[in-house]
Amino acid sequence: MSTNPNNTLRMRLEGFTDGVVAIAITLLALELPKPHIVSSDLSAGVMELVQHLPGFAAFLLSFITIAIFWVNHHQLTQHISISDGVGRRIIWGNTVFLMFVTLIPFAATAVTENSFHVVSVLMYASILFGASASFAIMRSWIHQTSMKESSAWRSLVGPVLYALAILVLPLVPVLAYILLVVPPLYYFLPRSKW
Amino acid sequence: MSTNPNNTLRMRLEGFTDGVVAIAITLLALELPKPHIVSSDLSAGVMELVQHLPGFAAFLLSFITIAIFWVNHHQLTQHISISDGVGRRIIWGNTVFLMFVTLIPFAATAVTENSFHVVSVLMYASILFGASASFAIMRSWIHQTSMKESSAWRSLVGPVLYALAILVLPLVPVLAYILLVVPPLYYFLPRSKW
Amino acid sequence: MSTNPNNTLRMRLEGFTDGVVAIAITLLALELPKPHIVSSDLSAGVMELVQHLPGFAAFLLSFITIAIFWVNHHQLTQHISISDGVGRRIIWGNTVFLMFVTLIPFAATAVTENSFHVVSVLMYASILFGASASFAIMRSWIHQTSMKESSAWRSLVGPVLYALAILVLPLVPVLAYILLVVPPLYYFLPRSKW
Amino acid sequence: MSTNPNNTLRMRLEGFTDGVVAIAITLLALELPKPHIVSSDLSAGVMELVQHLPGFAAFLLSFITIAIFWVNHHQLTQHISISDGVGRRIIWGNTVFLMFVTLIPFAATAVTENSFHVVSVLMYASILFGASASFAIMRSWIHQTSMKESSAWRSLVGPVLYALAILVLPLVPVLAYILLVVPPLYYFLPRSKW
Repeated sequence: MSTNPNNTLRMRLEGFTDGVVAIAITLLALELPKPHIVSSDLSAGVMELVQHLPGFAAFLLSFITIAIFWVNHHQLTQHISISDGVGRRIIWGNTVFLMFVTLIPFAATAVTENSFHVVSVLMYASILFGASASFAIMRSWIHQTSMKESSAWRSLVGPVLYALAILVLPLVPVLAYILLVVPPLYYFLPRSKW
Repeated sequence: MSTNPNNTLRMRLEGFTDGVVAIAITLLALELPKPHIVSSDLSAGVMELVQHLPGFAAFLLSFITIAIFWVNHHQLTQHISISDGVGRRIIWGNTVFLMFVTLIPFAATAVTENSFHVVSVLMYASILFGASASFAIMRSWIHQTSMKESSAWRSLVGPVLYALAILVLPLVPVLAYILLVVPPLYYFLPRSKW
Repeated sequence: MSTNPNNTLRMRLEGFTDGVVAIAITLLALELPKPHIVSSDLSAGVMELVQHLPGFAAFLLSFITIAIFWVNHHQLTQHISISDGVGRRIIWGNTVFLMFVTLIPFAATAVTENSFHVVSVLMYASILFGASASFAIMRSWIHQTSMKESSAWRSLVGPVLYALAILVLPLVPVLAYILLVVPPLYYFLPRSKW
Repeated sequence: MSTNPNNTLRMRLEGFTDGVVAIAITLLALELPKPHIVSSDLSAGVMELVQHLPGFAAFLLSFITIAIFWVNHHQLTQHISISDGVGRRIIWGNTVFLMFVTLIPFAATAVTENSFHVVSVLMYASILFGASASFAIMRSWIHQTSMKESSAWRSLVGPVLYALAILVLPLVPVLAYILLVVPPLYYFLPRSKW
């Protein structure tokens, strides 16, 4: 379509990433354990459903986190204008990022099925750390190349808070849960410029 | 490809939405419980299959409902011509809409596995309500911006009927089922203009 | 991108169809029952794997059948050049076609899990009939509109043979199996023009 | 969009391939068996997670192998400029390639669930052989047509090493495992030209 191979590569990279992210975000709901409602009474049956709320919270947090990754990824690839050599590095940085994204539904399910066991939450937080850290690294490569002003510190909010959550989790679980929820909230804070 | 960033964002939003909807609609069939046919007699075996008809009806209704959402979404994004500020609101309105869409296969399976237990149908109707309500809100934002004549009341048919179904379900289940089937039927009514 | 709305609709229809077909064809392998190999002896273990050959044959036939649908669909949409009124009919013809395509992995798994029970093969053949018949109908609409020479009889090979397979299955199962394999073979026959 | 039908076919072939590969690579994580952590002690719980490391290694190897296939496929389709006759051969070569790619998550899961039983690893290696061999054949067709210098031997590294792994597996399993890891490593060796 275009004779510019870099442009084509960027488009296919975007398309592939969108595909993987769309599948990962849709599988979140597929992996939700189906409620088995046994009591014939309405209010008792609703209570059985309510017991699935923690799992639904894990679904919600994961869905929003992946959606933010997707929006940020879209903004990032806007800045790609690259030589072939850089291209290879970015492709594989993106592949590592996608690997962590595909693991999010797996980890969210493991958290739910193990009733928020500390070890499963540790795995979940580690995967979010891996996704946000690989994204921050890829971001620094692209902004370095395109000579744009970086404001790189903003992309460090995720990795730093997820790392803190991992450290704090065995000691003060509640604080770790709060740390996992902060990055999405931070993203939605009003900002002078988006 | 295009130098217009809004155009690119719209294209990627459409592509991402199409991806999520395509996966959700395909997972409907994956989640259908497989029939286990034990009787060696042909007509008896067919009767075993027939017992799966309610589950297949839930599949069919969900498939058509998601397909209508997809067609309406395509028509809606045709009208997007936006400033960045509006863009962010629409992206997240769309994300909430997609979250409800990904929950439809989950809820349809829960309905089937719980033999149409009132609580599971309640969850299913609530998710359809969430999807149609978030779509109607997103629609009002887009039409407000693009200064086009709205005919907004048509997009309220879904949310209103689904809300009625939720209210009526514990009292007159049959009426609730009818209310769930009306929005797709309404969509297919002949109209002067599509 | 293009100012021609019909062109955009055709592109999005193609993209959505490709998405659904790509997911359905990939889920075929996901649904294959995993072999559980217990004997430590190599040749005995291979024999355990060999017992899964019928299931693998169902996978292979389904994969090739869906791939042929995809190729034919690509050729078909090349001929679309439509007014809005026709557009709606084609969208919903295509939706019915896609519904049958998404049911193919479900039916293939049901056939495998029920050890080729006649009733499950009946369901499988009916779904292939539905997919090929809806495709033939959609094809006739598009060719009628675009005023091209039809050679419609070729798209009837699938529906007719699948209908025959359904009729023959309870009487002469082997003949029905042969009938299910003929349409893909027919497709690969050398032809003067593709 | 373009009036060049070959161009359109190439674009849709790329899009379809990207879709199938994106789904297959995302399903890898879905198929990972979820850890069930029972001990309340932190270090004991981590040890339970560590027992899943072999399965995670199979996931990692499969993810990287599929990602390399994707990158190579992108480079290959850049060279397509074809007559209709060649087009059909390439479409079906690509379909066979995709069939093997969709089987990789299935085989990786079978390896994990059977605790690396020699027969399951044999199946896994055979599927990697099938994918790389069909890719090499498709590559030779495309380069033959486009009259470009081939360096075909490089695309033979995969098929040859996977074939060796299959032969060696029943005798020296460790050597076979090494052979399965070499093709991805080879790909990442620095090269004068990418």
